[in-house]
Amino acid sequence: MSGERILLGHGSGGRMMHRLIRDVMAPAFSVSGFGDAALIGAAGPGRLAVTTDGYVVSPIFFPGGTIGELAVNGTVNDLAVSGARPIALTAGFILEEGLALDDLRRIVGSMAAAAHESGVAIVAGDTKVVGRGSCDGCFITTSGVGLVPEGRDLGPRAIRAGDAVLISGHTGTHGVAVMAERNGLSFEPPIASDTAALNGLVEAMFASGAAIRVMRDPTRGGLATSLKEFALESGRRILVREADIPVLPGVRGACDLLGLDPLYVANEGVLIAVAAAEDAGNLLAAMRSHPRGRDAALIGAVGAEEDAKVLLQTSAAGSRILDMLPGEQLPRIC
Amino acid sequence: MSGERILLGHGSGGRMMHRLIRDVMAPAFSVSGFGDAALIGAAGPGRLAVTTDGYVVSPIFFPGGTIGELAVNGTVNDLAVSGARPIALTAGFILEEGLALDDLRRIVGSMAAAAHESGVAIVAGDTKVVGRGSCDGCFITTSGVGLVPEGRDLGPRAIRAGDAVLISGHTGTHGVAVMAERNGLSFEPPIASDTAALNGLVEAMFASGAAIRVMRDPTRGGLATSLKEFALESGRRILVREADIPVLPGVRGACDLLGLDPLYVANEGVLIAVAAAEDAGNLLAAMRSHPRGRDAALIGAVGAEEDAKVLLQTSAAGSRILDMLPGEQLPRIC
Repeated sequence: MSGERILLGHGSGGRMMHRLIRDVMAPAFSVSGFGDAALIGAAGPGRLAVTTDGYVVSPIFFPGGTIGELAVNGTVNDLAVSGARPIALTAGFILEEGLALDDLRRIVGSMAAAAHESGVAIVAGDTKVVGRGSCDGCFITTSGVGLVPEGRDLGPRAIRAGDAVLISGHTGTHGVAVMAERNGLSFEPPIASDTAALNGLVEAMFASGAAIRVMRDPTRGGLATSLKEFALESGRRILVREADIPVLPGVRGACDLLGLDPLYVANEGVLIAVAAAEDAGNLLAAMRSHPRGRDAALIGAVGAEEDAKVLLQTSAAGSRILDMLPGEQLPRIC
Repeated sequence: MSGERILLGHGSGGRMMHRLIRDVMAPAFSVSGFGDAALIGAAGPGRLAVTTDGYVVSPIFFPGGTIGELAVNGTVNDLAVSGARPIALTAGFILEEGLALDDLRRIVGSMAAAAHESGVAIVAGDTKVVGRGSCDGCFITTSGVGLVPEGRDLGPRAIRAGDAVLISGHTGTHGVAVMAERNGLSFEPPIASDTAALNGLVEAMFASGAAIRVMRDPTRGGLATSLKEFALESGRRILVREADIPVLPGVRGACDLLGLDPLYVANEGVLIAVAAAEDAGNLLAAMRSHPRGRDAALIGAVGAEEDAKVLLQTSAAGSRILDMLPGEQLPRIC
């Protein structure tokens, strides 16, 4: 079907849609038949976690990934940082009439590969087609269900004064990679998105036995926004040291050039964690010995002050307050 | 905030998005805080069911409903007809820059009301904003998780020769209501969408003790397409009698006028069921005594032939084969 394009009829519920599902979707996913819901077996003991995320990244292909990989990894990560083991994903596509079927195949193939790599099946899906000009090629909304094993009880309320703050890798890479692609900029060495599933890393972190208080994956709004959420939700001050926050030299250079602050640029394969100070060394070692945490770093601590502020100790030995950005630094990076 | 509109910054992850969630989304839904996933308690015995559906209906407001009600009821119904008791829903919004905030409030309010009426909580959400012209006002993708109690084992493979085919109400109403609104047509009496949650009806059907083989809610592609899916998936012939299929007189008239076949027009508050012939009377009585099944009817039976065809016995005493539509009769009705 090379050269073919998506037509309105592919969203009809009729024969064209059934063929699209049979030929393009079903071979890549674990979707069987046209029933209204997928049955995924008993849940086992523990609490269920559910999450959803829409992906509207422009362009849909960028260095290091596709909108489809982002959609799978992002939802796996939302479950993982909640302490849940992902059980199953669903994918809802909104396609623009005229989208090249080969582009859809590439997206769907990259989703199947990402799902396989994270060990989580995509069990249900939906496809809608809207007329030319009514959406930008392809939007994907993924949802996920996971199971939080008994004994895992994460949340910002568990944060205590003295706790350590860790990050699993370099920050700001994904947003800069997408923005560079969108604006036709190229860097040497090239900057590729960090999109990756973190559920394996999270299991390794729990296996270390560290008392993890809370985790989050700092996507939109970047590291600074997630830290500010922790501060607001716990009511405590969080202190981070700029010199200890890992940023790739190329990303730092691109941000300087473009007037962006890497602390506010989105990540798609990085998590931050707050853990008991006495466990920080063990936890950092566990993270660094996992492929997705090789560049993990201890970047700060929770203060005794109850002012819900995030303070950045700058490399110039001064300090500044990190607040949320009022609006948008960089639209449609995920 | 009357007169305000959605801006790109509302999708940023920054302060504007946090305020939108706090002021518009959170009061309507059961979403607490900005964590990455919602925890919804232990699942209990049985199998989990998951489903997802995207809603791109144009216009977003139509007689009898909104895109938001459709999104909630549609996902509740996908779970219910799978035999699952809905546990929780998620909602992913893709909003166009410039959408009136009051329109978003109306949509979100109608979702909260629909969720309340069906007794299912919306526990997680996501909001993305795309630039003007990049989507049509508002797309919503809802996903749902449910629990199939032990002993419920539905599926087209359970269909046997002689089984009865039932429908819970009038067919074709939703699609005609949306199309009339889109084209500025008005009918007397007015035709309103049938959007409604069917989980209560489904529980009443199971409580009757009838041996239900399979259910489906015939949305896109209408009644004929769902019947053809049953025929294909079971390998059996299905016979339905045109005279017994309930269609509102106004819907029939509008379809005649517009050259549409009501059997292929979408429903949003109707289900079809195949059940053991000896239970058909009991099941029909149980359906009719529920407010959502008042107009239920016995419309046909499963034949002994294994040719996967759907035969419509027409009012003129002839018969014709109902196949899937090749493409689209009526785009963007859900």
